[in-house]
Amino acid sequence: MTFEADFQELRERVQEITDLTSVGAVLGWDRSTYLPAGGAPARARQSALLARLRHQKATDPALGTLLSRLERERTHLDPDGLEARLIEVARHDFDRATRVPDAFVVQLSQHANETYGAWTRARPENDFAGLVPRLERTLELSRQYATFFPEFDHPMDIFVDNATEGVTVAQVKDVFSRLRAGLVPLVQAVSERPEPRTDFLHRFYPAGEQLAFGESVIRDYGYDFSRGRQDLTHHPFCTRFSIDDVRITTRVKENDLTECLFSTLHESGHAMYEQGVDSAFEGTPLARGTSSAVHESQSRLWENVVGRGRHFWQHYFPRLQAAFPEQLHDVSADEMYRAVNVVRRSLIRTDADELTYNLHVILRFELELAMHEGRLEVRDLADAWHARYESDLGVRAPDDRDGVLQDVHWYFGMIGGVFHGYTLGNVLSLQFWDAARRAVPDVSDQIARGEFAPLRGWLTEHIYRFGRSRSANEIALATTGSALTVEPYLNYLRGKYGELYGVHAETA
Amino acid sequence: MTFEADFQELRERVQEITDLTSVGAVLGWDRSTYLPAGGAPARARQSALLARLRHQKATDPALGTLLSRLERERTHLDPDGLEARLIEVARHDFDRATRVPDAFVVQLSQHANETYGAWTRARPENDFAGLVPRLERTLELSRQYATFFPEFDHPMDIFVDNATEGVTVAQVKDVFSRLRAGLVPLVQAVSERPEPRTDFLHRFYPAGEQLAFGESVIRDYGYDFSRGRQDLTHHPFCTRFSIDDVRITTRVKENDLTECLFSTLHESGHAMYEQGVDSAFEGTPLARGTSSAVHESQSRLWENVVGRGRHFWQHYFPRLQAAFPEQLHDVSADEMYRAVNVVRRSLIRTDADELTYNLHVILRFELELAMHEGRLEVRDLADAWHARYESDLGVRAPDDRDGVLQDVHWYFGMIGGVFHGYTLGNVLSLQFWDAARRAVPDVSDQIARGEFAPLRGWLTEHIYRFGRSRSANEIALATTGSALTVEPYLNYLRGKYGELYGVHAETA
Repeated sequence: MTFEADFQELRERVQEITDLTSVGAVLGWDRSTYLPAGGAPARARQSALLARLRHQKATDPALGTLLSRLERERTHLDPDGLEARLIEVARHDFDRATRVPDAFVVQLSQHANETYGAWTRARPENDFAGLVPRLERTLELSRQYATFFPEFDHPMDIFVDNATEGVTVAQVKDVFSRLRAGLVPLVQAVSERPEPRTDFLHRFYPAGEQLAFGESVIRDYGYDFSRGRQDLTHHPFCTRFSIDDVRITTRVKENDLTECLFSTLHESGHAMYEQGVDSAFEGTPLARGTSSAVHESQSRLWENVVGRGRHFWQHYFPRLQAAFPEQLHDVSADEMYRAVNVVRRSLIRTDADELTYNLHVILRFELELAMHEGRLEVRDLADAWHARYESDLGVRAPDDRDGVLQDVHWYFGMIGGVFHGYTLGNVLSLQFWDAARRAVPDVSDQIARGEFAPLRGWLTEHIYRFGRSRSANEIALATTGSALTVEPYLNYLRGKYGELYGVHAETA
Repeated sequence: MTFEADFQELRERVQEITDLTSVGAVLGWDRSTYLPAGGAPARARQSALLARLRHQKATDPALGTLLSRLERERTHLDPDGLEARLIEVARHDFDRATRVPDAFVVQLSQHANETYGAWTRARPENDFAGLVPRLERTLELSRQYATFFPEFDHPMDIFVDNATEGVTVAQVKDVFSRLRAGLVPLVQAVSERPEPRTDFLHRFYPAGEQLAFGESVIRDYGYDFSRGRQDLTHHPFCTRFSIDDVRITTRVKENDLTECLFSTLHESGHAMYEQGVDSAFEGTPLARGTSSAVHESQSRLWENVVGRGRHFWQHYFPRLQAAFPEQLHDVSADEMYRAVNVVRRSLIRTDADELTYNLHVILRFELELAMHEGRLEVRDLADAWHARYESDLGVRAPDDRDGVLQDVHWYFGMIGGVFHGYTLGNVLSLQFWDAARRAVPDVSDQIARGEFAPLRGWLTEHIYRFGRSRSANEIALATTGSALTVEPYLNYLRGKYGELYGVHAETA
């Protein structure tokens, strides 16, 4: 066998695996957007079949043999080239997949699909108790999954590493503790100041117009609708079926101007990342975002750093006012900017402001740790949730709907791999933003003119195009000169909210 | 191996095949409803992969061995029971699938997907010439497919038999010639009579209200929206992902009241058939309509025999008028009934009235025959189309958009398996309707009251619940006492249009 023939076989094999992943994603997208209620059981069965077929391909011993042959030739390859990176990533995925038995994959897929369906019924009925047996099974499966990777120190390390390669539970705890130390006094100082006006956010804004406005903004951002689309779901998300078919979803409340807009901006950040991957990677495992933390850095950058910034509203407030002239006739651009940045200790993570958002994440991560470490039983989770909200945010949900049932994540997959990435993403977003500002000094003025091509161009050049061919650490080091560091993010929050609320930076 | 263990293995194997078919259908549904333009190439690749995996499962030699073992036990089984019928149908499908090489299946799927994409671009540009090379390849693949089944007399027999088992090209030609002999003088007689008023059908009817009205009717019919949904596509269709997820699509023209309504009624007939299959058959090849002719008999029955009938409009005209009071203020129920049954020699098959519809089908079938028999080249097809429309219907399309490019069928799959089933379905629909009327004598009065449960109940009892566990011939014989026969259909047309147009039955 020549290297060329072997490498061609590798491409064909990973393309099948990638395409089966994408087909599974189509099934998942349809389940969340358009599936009629009756279709759920068969869909769970179909998704489980796809997961099993994918897993068989991903763990085919012949793929391992092929990779070993290719690795012997690796020294002759450019270490940054497609060949070397594809071999490396394929080896990583193969080793990880072969640890997990086929039967486990099928059980997990079937269980996740059924639990998701049960959650969609239980949430409106505020029935956490009814979900406890299923969630106990989810925790059991999550712990079982961890046992397949005994080389990690902490039972949740494998989930954190799967989300962002090379990061450990210990590191996340360290980042979170430094972040919390900076956040708590800042939130405290802000909460003692008077709240800005927000009444006008809750006037009546028809759904169709809200969707149209959000779509007009992300079209300006550079989300390509000829290679994607937006649909409505209960929980917004971004999903990819290929580099040229990256879809997002959003949700609308007609008495809340911010829900739809910021969900749309958030998901567009994920989607532009996926749409921006080098097209040479299509049909390979390199053709997606490199980690959940880098992914989230992009959704939060476009949602918050850009979309909740003063310059953004200089450009878009007149346009929003033109779309809703009656509702916004008595509002100024400055009032809008202040309103979309109101800080409030609240119940719902996805509605939270930038400042308190991370407290929502940190408490979820710590509840996950407590469950994995055996310090918290699933049946006590709803109460633990309420207790943490009272202690960390000073609020208590009237029921579990807006408590432990609010996020889909624990009800669709395993426990431990998702939430922490949102805050790591926030931290990274400011490292990238600072780097982008150094490279494109007038980026803020461009935003104030509704020009996003230079910013998106810099992000594409330094992050998006690489897909998974660079790790989160490599990207952070190359663009910002350092690995994960909380200072840029804390400085940003202190500057922005110090100015907004008249709080001295040193107080915070 | 016990019979029970073998049969269990058969169920698992056919469930995988069935589920892969359904997943392929999800990909197809999404391609027609929501796929962004950029996503087409990857989707073609993914569909081809699914087709290949499905074909591998469907032709696994171990399945053949298993079937042989099970067949040795068949004499002990109830010949009408699930076990015997499943073994029989699985054998039929296995034998048919094993004749077709894997490579052919992949080529065909990839080619069909690409050609579909090319057709969606070529049609608005009226570019048949650009499609000729692709369509030549389609014909080549269709002929190649026929060579895998040398036991049939005519090269198109395999397509007809795949659509409706046991029917041959010779039989279709015979039915069509008897039908044409009855139709031509009837169309001629009607065309000499004054046309009813139809102006009000072309007033402005907003899309949303049209969709809502159509959905209200099929809800009354008994289409179950908790196990289905309706979306918009260029070409309406029905697709099944399980017995409990059967979806339909429709299209709307705001200056045409009939397009959306009758498309919706038509597809609901297909869908109620699929939704009505015995739930014990879920996950097996028995869980779908038994043939294209029986399927089409149901779509045409609910669209035409019911939906274009006088009794239907007694009930629905006041409701339609309430939905569109301004547009229909000067119209009576009788005028509406006459308008939706206007006979007109026209260009578009899917818009055609009941009487001329079959002429559209017959000419397509004959063009297909001419291509398969080598009497017509693809490059001459557009001209042949125009010539046949001029001779058979007396009209000529101004371009190919409404000529040879109007139907998707030849541009998405092979040539020869589809159109003839529409007319066979019309013929069967009246055999079934007559049988239903004998069993439920006051069915017309029930329809005039908007009551459809007794009719749907009879159809479910005698047709729907059996799925593929009974053949078209078995169902026709059991319910009507005879195989395919054109007389009931011709009698119905003569009676209905004789009365509508004041034409004497004997003239026709």
